[in-house]
Amino acid sequence: MATMATMVSAFPSTSAFQLPTSNPSPSTLALITTTSTAISFNRRKPKKTRNLLIRASSRMIEKETAETHRPDTFLRESDGVSSDQDVGANSVRVRFEKMIREAQDSVCAAIEAADGGGKFKEDVWSRPGGGGGISRVLQDSGVWEKAGVNVSVVYGVMPPEAYRAAKPANAADNGNLKPEPVPFFAAGISSVLHPKNPFAPTLHFNYRYFETDAPKDAPGAPRQWWFGGGTDLTPAYIFEDDVQKNACDKFDPSFYPKFKKWCDDYFYIKHRDERRGLGGIFFDDLNDYDQEMLLAFSTECANSVVEAYLPIIERRKDLPFTDQNKAWQQLRRGRYVEFNLVYDRGTTFGLKTGGRIESILVSLPLTARWEYDHKPEEGSEEWKLLDACINPKDWI
Amino acid sequence: MATMATMVSAFPSTSAFQLPTSNPSPSTLALITTTSTAISFNRRKPKKTRNLLIRASSRMIEKETAETHRPDTFLRESDGVSSDQDVGANSVRVRFEKMIREAQDSVCAAIEAADGGGKFKEDVWSRPGGGGGISRVLQDSGVWEKAGVNVSVVYGVMPPEAYRAAKPANAADNGNLKPEPVPFFAAGISSVLHPKNPFAPTLHFNYRYFETDAPKDAPGAPRQWWFGGGTDLTPAYIFEDDVQKNACDKFDPSFYPKFKKWCDDYFYIKHRDERRGLGGIFFDDLNDYDQEMLLAFSTECANSVVEAYLPIIERRKDLPFTDQNKAWQQLRRGRYVEFNLVYDRGTTFGLKTGGRIESILVSLPLTARWEYDHKPEEGSEEWKLLDACINPKDWI
Repeated sequence: MATMATMVSAFPSTSAFQLPTSNPSPSTLALITTTSTAISFNRRKPKKTRNLLIRASSRMIEKETAETHRPDTFLRESDGVSSDQDVGANSVRVRFEKMIREAQDSVCAAIEAADGGGKFKEDVWSRPGGGGGISRVLQDSGVWEKAGVNVSVVYGVMPPEAYRAAKPANAADNGNLKPEPVPFFAAGISSVLHPKNPFAPTLHFNYRYFETDAPKDAPGAPRQWWFGGGTDLTPAYIFEDDVQKNACDKFDPSFYPKFKKWCDDYFYIKHRDERRGLGGIFFDDLNDYDQEMLLAFSTECANSVVEAYLPIIERRKDLPFTDQNKAWQQLRRGRYVEFNLVYDRGTTFGLKTGGRIESILVSLPLTARWEYDHKPEEGSEEWKLLDACINPKDWI
Repeated sequence: MATMATMVSAFPSTSAFQLPTSNPSPSTLALITTTSTAISFNRRKPKKTRNLLIRASSRMIEKETAETHRPDTFLRESDGVSSDQDVGANSVRVRFEKMIREAQDSVCAAIEAADGGGKFKEDVWSRPGGGGGISRVLQDSGVWEKAGVNVSVVYGVMPPEAYRAAKPANAADNGNLKPEPVPFFAAGISSVLHPKNPFAPTLHFNYRYFETDAPKDAPGAPRQWWFGGGTDLTPAYIFEDDVQKNACDKFDPSFYPKFKKWCDDYFYIKHRDERRGLGGIFFDDLNDYDQEMLLAFSTECANSVVEAYLPIIERRKDLPFTDQNKAWQQLRRGRYVEFNLVYDRGTTFGLKTGGRIESILVSLPLTARWEYDHKPEEGSEEWKLLDACINPKDWI
């Protein structure tokens, strides 16, 4: 059985509960020169990726339209029917959308089963130019304060400078690209699960895939792609067995130490000098590994959420707690809000680009609390959690 | 007796509960060429101010030190003892600090009296290079969910480009300034008062004064100064008599319409396309009126908070309410959090520059709530409030 640690050590984790709506590389893009379709788990030669700021624009994403039925796919027809391997039925776009749709179904089914009665509310939407999403929210139920599991598919357009700046210097036509906007595709699943019991940790996970079209005006110019994602745990109280070691390094032994540190660095509330939670794994702009390997990595991670997290919920959901325990959980919920609204790249990007607000902000807890100058008593359980948020630990 | 409308129509209101710590012109500076000390209430010739971005720097403000006693002044000795009119005992710095300290005392006394038992907790701090502040917070008392009233005095240094860019083109030595940092002074009072009863509105007010030193390396170069401030009301339910007309235009008849619109524009939650509350008055970077007039304006405004707001609290604090009323208030508190963390210039600047976090974030309510996709029933009292936040009204 996978444990939390299995999940976080084996699979990529991500940052934000933002919709994939807000995932077209919130701030950085990286790119590679070839789009291999061969399945290979060998790590490519390390390559320094160049980062690039994409400025948020409120015109980047069209206004969504509510739908009454779930479509089989949010992909444009041109993405699903071609016999071209890059854009046809076996394309990464097609397989990634299928994967996140199936993960959404299985995670929601497991969450409802753990709840013993609650049912997700579902909202489906699409955008005129292609893309759309499904938001599912279970709120104020038996076990869950708020559980949100969203998938979305976005077709957008990035400024040509963004594509050019991210392109490697040795790419065929470097410098000769016409300054035309480059279409991109982004898809992702993101979820935040806030349980009611203060001893049951909040889980966040998100996996996303980004791809540009090959520029039509520059023959030979490469298609760009990257994966991002992660899983992280935000408890109000520490239970070490929630993060016990059961590492799975079958994808790459360097992943866990690298992505664990990335997670600690990313979920940092700078103005508090503390992390949002106890971490997990995080990565972004990842394209210097084989594409098929990263797709498999993301898939296994998304599929392991249920077996890794739900047993923790079963152990914690009915523990007795005091008003003080609840107030502390609510204070930590306040920190969650601070991180997501102030720092999270996906959330802040989503707010700026006009994504579906209710889906983006479903990451916020149902309730949160801010007490002036609250300081836990030294040595208390609350103090231990805070200490671990200030000084990240090697749990595994 | 002053009403809320008296206050908001007569006097400048401000943006942020941020400390003045976070007030050294979060994003813009404006400047005038002379520093008149003559008392005059005549409006100066309108002058287009030029805005200037001051980049936040975490090194801009020194780390604060807790103090056990309130000092008589947070000003540097050099600001209070000189016989030079600009920097001596009658300087605007000295008088502004005295004014905000007195206003803090009177507002806190009135809030405690209305509470009928609660006492403010006080924290005093100073900074090694001069400046400091007093935070007072009354939390979870009889009437108040959270009431914070802060004053602070900041000495900082701004980049020379900031001073140069803000200087008028016709200033004596334009272009000849050496690129040396320009010291500035900022002082302010800021307060957010969140009552418990959902029918009692939240009040925010803030008045601040900013001044640069005259650059020592450029004889004749002007000292810059500006005032900012405002008062605004954020109810969960509309009571029109809370905002009835009793306009006071004795300072300038153009103030109310101009500052009312500024307030509606400023407290805008862009991603929701709604305002935080019902508004009031807001202004910033104000220096194209006589300095003494603006000092008097700020003073009268700060001093009228008690008589304008407390009667509203008396009328509303004991009204019976339902769980639904309370939940709606908590949802609006969530909007308050969204505005303050995402948009408020003072708060965001304060978080970036390393001001005293607990003072900056005391503006956040004790508790807040985010329900997924909550929509009030059309025509309900909740809907009316939301409508007024989406479509600002002319209350007066």
